[in-house]
Amino acid sequence: MSHIPLRIGMVGYGFMGRAHSNGYSQANHFFNLKYKPVLQAVAARNAEKARAFADQWGYQDIETDWRKLVERKDIDAIDICTPNNLHKEIALAAAANGKMILCEKPLSMNTAEGEEMCQAVEKAGVANTVWYNYRRIPAVTMAKQLIDEGKLGRIFHYRAMFLQDWTISEDVPQGGTATWRLDAQAAGSGVTGDLLAHCIDTAIWLNGSITGVTAMTETFVKERMHAETGKKQEVKIDDAAAFLARFQNGSLATFESTRYARGHKALYTLEINGEKASIKWDLHDLHRLSFFDHRDEGRLRGWKSIHVSDGDQPYMKNWWVPGLQIGYEHSFVHQVVDFLKSLETGQPCSPTFRDALETQKVCDAVLESAKSGAWVGIS
Amino acid sequence: MSHIPLRIGMVGYGFMGRAHSNGYSQANHFFNLKYKPVLQAVAARNAEKARAFADQWGYQDIETDWRKLVERKDIDAIDICTPNNLHKEIALAAAANGKMILCEKPLSMNTAEGEEMCQAVEKAGVANTVWYNYRRIPAVTMAKQLIDEGKLGRIFHYRAMFLQDWTISEDVPQGGTATWRLDAQAAGSGVTGDLLAHCIDTAIWLNGSITGVTAMTETFVKERMHAETGKKQEVKIDDAAAFLARFQNGSLATFESTRYARGHKALYTLEINGEKASIKWDLHDLHRLSFFDHRDEGRLRGWKSIHVSDGDQPYMKNWWVPGLQIGYEHSFVHQVVDFLKSLETGQPCSPTFRDALETQKVCDAVLESAKSGAWVGIS
Amino acid sequence: MSHIPLRIGMVGYGFMGRAHSNGYSQANHFFNLKYKPVLQAVAARNAEKARAFADQWGYQDIETDWRKLVERKDIDAIDICTPNNLHKEIALAAAANGKMILCEKPLSMNTAEGEEMCQAVEKAGVANTVWYNYRRIPAVTMAKQLIDEGKLGRIFHYRAMFLQDWTISEDVPQGGTATWRLDAQAAGSGVTGDLLAHCIDTAIWLNGSITGVTAMTETFVKERMHAETGKKQEVKIDDAAAFLARFQNGSLATFESTRYARGHKALYTLEINGEKASIKWDLHDLHRLSFFDHRDEGRLRGWKSIHVSDGDQPYMKNWWVPGLQIGYEHSFVHQVVDFLKSLETGQPCSPTFRDALETQKVCDAVLESAKSGAWVGIS
Amino acid sequence: MSHIPLRIGMVGYGFMGRAHSNGYSQANHFFNLKYKPVLQAVAARNAEKARAFADQWGYQDIETDWRKLVERKDIDAIDICTPNNLHKEIALAAAANGKMILCEKPLSMNTAEGEEMCQAVEKAGVANTVWYNYRRIPAVTMAKQLIDEGKLGRIFHYRAMFLQDWTISEDVPQGGTATWRLDAQAAGSGVTGDLLAHCIDTAIWLNGSITGVTAMTETFVKERMHAETGKKQEVKIDDAAAFLARFQNGSLATFESTRYARGHKALYTLEINGEKASIKWDLHDLHRLSFFDHRDEGRLRGWKSIHVSDGDQPYMKNWWVPGLQIGYEHSFVHQVVDFLKSLETGQPCSPTFRDALETQKVCDAVLESAKSGAWVGIS
Repeated sequence: MSHIPLRIGMVGYGFMGRAHSNGYSQANHFFNLKYKPVLQAVAARNAEKARAFADQWGYQDIETDWRKLVERKDIDAIDICTPNNLHKEIALAAAANGKMILCEKPLSMNTAEGEEMCQAVEKAGVANTVWYNYRRIPAVTMAKQLIDEGKLGRIFHYRAMFLQDWTISEDVPQGGTATWRLDAQAAGSGVTGDLLAHCIDTAIWLNGSITGVTAMTETFVKERMHAETGKKQEVKIDDAAAFLARFQNGSLATFESTRYARGHKALYTLEINGEKASIKWDLHDLHRLSFFDHRDEGRLRGWKSIHVSDGDQPYMKNWWVPGLQIGYEHSFVHQVVDFLKSLETGQPCSPTFRDALETQKVCDAVLESAKSGAWVGIS
Repeated sequence: MSHIPLRIGMVGYGFMGRAHSNGYSQANHFFNLKYKPVLQAVAARNAEKARAFADQWGYQDIETDWRKLVERKDIDAIDICTPNNLHKEIALAAAANGKMILCEKPLSMNTAEGEEMCQAVEKAGVANTVWYNYRRIPAVTMAKQLIDEGKLGRIFHYRAMFLQDWTISEDVPQGGTATWRLDAQAAGSGVTGDLLAHCIDTAIWLNGSITGVTAMTETFVKERMHAETGKKQEVKIDDAAAFLARFQNGSLATFESTRYARGHKALYTLEINGEKASIKWDLHDLHRLSFFDHRDEGRLRGWKSIHVSDGDQPYMKNWWVPGLQIGYEHSFVHQVVDFLKSLETGQPCSPTFRDALETQKVCDAVLESAKSGAWVGIS
Repeated sequence: MSHIPLRIGMVGYGFMGRAHSNGYSQANHFFNLKYKPVLQAVAARNAEKARAFADQWGYQDIETDWRKLVERKDIDAIDICTPNNLHKEIALAAAANGKMILCEKPLSMNTAEGEEMCQAVEKAGVANTVWYNYRRIPAVTMAKQLIDEGKLGRIFHYRAMFLQDWTISEDVPQGGTATWRLDAQAAGSGVTGDLLAHCIDTAIWLNGSITGVTAMTETFVKERMHAETGKKQEVKIDDAAAFLARFQNGSLATFESTRYARGHKALYTLEINGEKASIKWDLHDLHRLSFFDHRDEGRLRGWKSIHVSDGDQPYMKNWWVPGLQIGYEHSFVHQVVDFLKSLETGQPCSPTFRDALETQKVCDAVLESAKSGAWVGIS
Repeated sequence: MSHIPLRIGMVGYGFMGRAHSNGYSQANHFFNLKYKPVLQAVAARNAEKARAFADQWGYQDIETDWRKLVERKDIDAIDICTPNNLHKEIALAAAANGKMILCEKPLSMNTAEGEEMCQAVEKAGVANTVWYNYRRIPAVTMAKQLIDEGKLGRIFHYRAMFLQDWTISEDVPQGGTATWRLDAQAAGSGVTGDLLAHCIDTAIWLNGSITGVTAMTETFVKERMHAETGKKQEVKIDDAAAFLARFQNGSLATFESTRYARGHKALYTLEINGEKASIKWDLHDLHRLSFFDHRDEGRLRGWKSIHVSDGDQPYMKNWWVPGLQIGYEHSFVHQVVDFLKSLETGQPCSPTFRDALETQKVCDAVLESAKSGAWVGIS
């Protein structure tokens, strides 16, 4: 079978650069697809690092200026894996050059930037998607199926947390390549844009629009050395954030995120309580979905731990056999697969920029409410 | 060994009447104590039911008017197991008669009532305690030990939930003997006073004072038949409540309670994240404490599930042997044991009325914030 | 309601003496029964200890010779809580005196003794039961219901283990009051009679007769100080035992027990795999039953953790409310309840001596096979 | 960095062909290695299927006769992924041609064949390894580290099971491409060679030599349609097998495997109880290791669930960040990595053919004991 090549131009080579590159490498090994990614070129300011990355993953070429990359004729799609403060500029340039865009989350530094980006891709008419990869963990995708089928009935409660503990030490710096997520200038916000954004994206997808929030944020370590200046500087990001929310469907929600939850490495958890059934999931055992079904016989009701590894569960017939689990990286493979399929069908690959803008609005509302102490509505 | 009798006068014979009576019956079977409860009399308006209850538990006598009970000379302590709206009146009368008082939680309908009750027992100089029984689940008591020893270090986060699902059906009535908790006139509030009050009591005990909250509440089912009038009436209690909080020690908290969390019967959960260690506990497996210790060797760090059934764990040397668990009712036995010991030592048995008043203040602030949408401070 | 008294004469005051006494004390507090135990007298050689025990539990009288106890006219039932080597003699005397007998497990030192005991009670026509208490953990009782209803279909596999770790240290003595279980003369065997006997009793109850076994045993610590002689003596009990078995229904089984499984205090586990469904249970979380049902919709199949605390689950409507767990001691309360009910109906209270003899036969076969290395059939 | 190519010739294209091919594709993406696999050619009788497989994974060429493949000069290593009955013949031919060999487990149909294969590779002096991939699940590798460091002390017990449920239906055929594992002629044995072999390999690696076994096997479904003949034929493999074992270090063991354990897809579990600590692991949550350490403070002892995803845990610094799990397929990537490293160092990559022969001997002893009913020693 011959494939239609999709020539990828990658900007950035960090953690997400690897995760996306692996997605491009693996998609056609496990799924039968019309399109096939070709790793055309990677752009990064540091030529040596770009070269090493290209060698590792098989990119044919490098650029040291992303502007050159987005102008290349031999590239179909730009993948943006830079710190958040560059998303907008690169996306606008890519759209102007008619490139498809796969942008790492969060979409932008704020809603205003995001709105510009949406208008750019919509005007250019280019395929676009944002890497909210957790939608494509098979257990999470199955949760979406169950909700859409009405298995939960009326929803009363939504609960999500994303807990980490890697910044408890005061010795962790801010800024630079490895720790730009602690630098407000590069990241925009702290856990809100980094972690809560994931929770919000999934929540809107599963449970519909959020209409209002009240929030609190905290910065536990007030000053950290900056990796670039070498000086102690005020920390301007939010170390922790929590908010109460109401959804359009009448359900109530609590959301929380922190990098100070000792014992939790990357514990994204979600739970939905419906009239007829409830669902729980967490990232530390991402291959399991917990399900409680009130329609079960009374004395036999209980929470079921479903090992999502069977052929009749989302994405799984393309991997191994029942009982053999997949991991984190596969969520990116699935997003590549779905993006490639969307090119076949001409349908958008959600979340599009426009979908992801909804999450941006909630993030902005959270930060605003944390300052004002008041409820903030989301239109 | 001969014991000093503590003659109990019980008001009420419902669920809590049984739980407390069992506590009085069992305390001296398992613990060596100077005092020994004597089940002197139970008071309830319905003589037949009072008699049946007295027979079942061995109360020597009944009264159909609690006023008579509190005036009896042959009674040392009054146990209040009525709906919340009677707590104050009975407590005031009991104190006026010089009786010790063991009052079911929450202390009162609101802070003002609670303050009156505190003044009454303090003026009378009578021993008093409120049945926030979860403090005396051995795993919870051990959590308190660990925190007091400094094993957690600086606290960053506190999280508590109390989730139930028994009122989802619209056919559940309000009011009457079995469902007075859904009737605002008898209960004062819904999940806030019933369930959140437990979470708040434990939280203050483990983590210190709460300084401010922002809250939301919801009543999902707007009208229910009233068991006494037989008519559909507006439901005035909170079916669900959630709030964000800040503690005096600088930590952040989320609290949530509901009776619409399908799949959770009585799931009280708590988690505390400290700089050095973290703790988790839940009521559905109340004999376990989860503990994460950052001081463990790096590659061997993980959450430990401690089966709290050993002789070196709180209260457990008086029960069976390691590995054999106790249950819910034992928390009440422990409170009886500690109350009897407090009579030996002359020290108060926490939580006293004054301790429990703090919880009442937070409950009031939650309800106020849910109305106003603003943060409410607690002094 | 007035009750028919059942006057109990207890022999022994150790761990099991407490567990049974608690059963007698609690049964009528929680269950409505025609009969009601009266704690008439306890017999033990040490008068002081007997007296203390009587005081703690409310026995009206003591005896220092069990022979006197079994001859007393004011006693209806003898409860045997001594080391195993006294079971037979006491039971024979009790039967000869026309007393009902409640005998602690295992029934006897061996099959021959057990056969004598069966004949004695059958000849005397007295009610009799053996305290294989785990049958009456609600989750285990529910497992029995499900199997009897055919929910599992054809059974393929049975698996049971009883793991402890309290004798790993060479400093634990053998013999005496506290450690008679390590003394072959008092106990007959080690883990086989103490722990495997429980596993075997439940297995036969749930899955039918065992037809043959092949076994191995080991004594890891070869010599221990004897608590009575003060001298190091050879350890003659089995520290660990494991066996393969075949059941009459064609299913295969593995059984294992040890006191050298570091980390397990009293972990009795069982699992049954049937054509249509499977069941798991363990003693460390005795209030839960794990259930897998192949009839569930394919993608939603998984192991369900059932919190056995609801009114429609065995024994539970007599305790608290859904979500509130009971513990170890309640299994003894339930056996008392069922024994008292059996007096109402005139039906035997299983396991009777005759039922328990089956377990004795398997234990003997296990010990024989461990010596010979060959399969041993059970008739 | 330029690499030394290792040109792979693959025989077979089934489930294991995919798993190994993925290992070759991924190794250099995540690990820095001197050698790099090149997918040179795949051999299979069906040219069309071979071609499709080659396209999917990037093999440059195909052969329809494995004899041609093993003779090709442009191939360095032969990977044997055929049914068991072809292992010996291919291995002998490959060795005769001086090829390195990576052979799927079990090594051979029986010990005699395995011995021939060992002699062939040893005589030829070619690098060789057997794909007992579970050794290289990071949690299992860490278990090995802990044991080798003496963290467990003297070992008392070893326990392993491999439970599946995919052959319960009588409609599953035997023989053919998909179900050759049920055909004794292709597979040699049933669960013994397929599943127990994994358990035995890990056990010997972690706990040393097995000296004797007593076993039982069963074939629950006596006849199945043969996929090739289309006729009902007697089933000659073992559907289920269990055995007791003794290790040279004095510890006792139980092993069990079946394809009739309803509810378990591929549940390989192992547990080791040592004097000082114990370990548990299972394949359904392969990224976790359970650890109990008796050296912990008494009241804080418990089973710890270690999420093996940190940089200081085996293989994990090459994957993602703490908290993000990997899956089943990564064990094969790790075996490729270690095989490539072994070429750098010149050290063997365990398990070699000679290592795997030990497992074969135990499998033979299990089958022999199941027939004779007697203990069988292993020399």
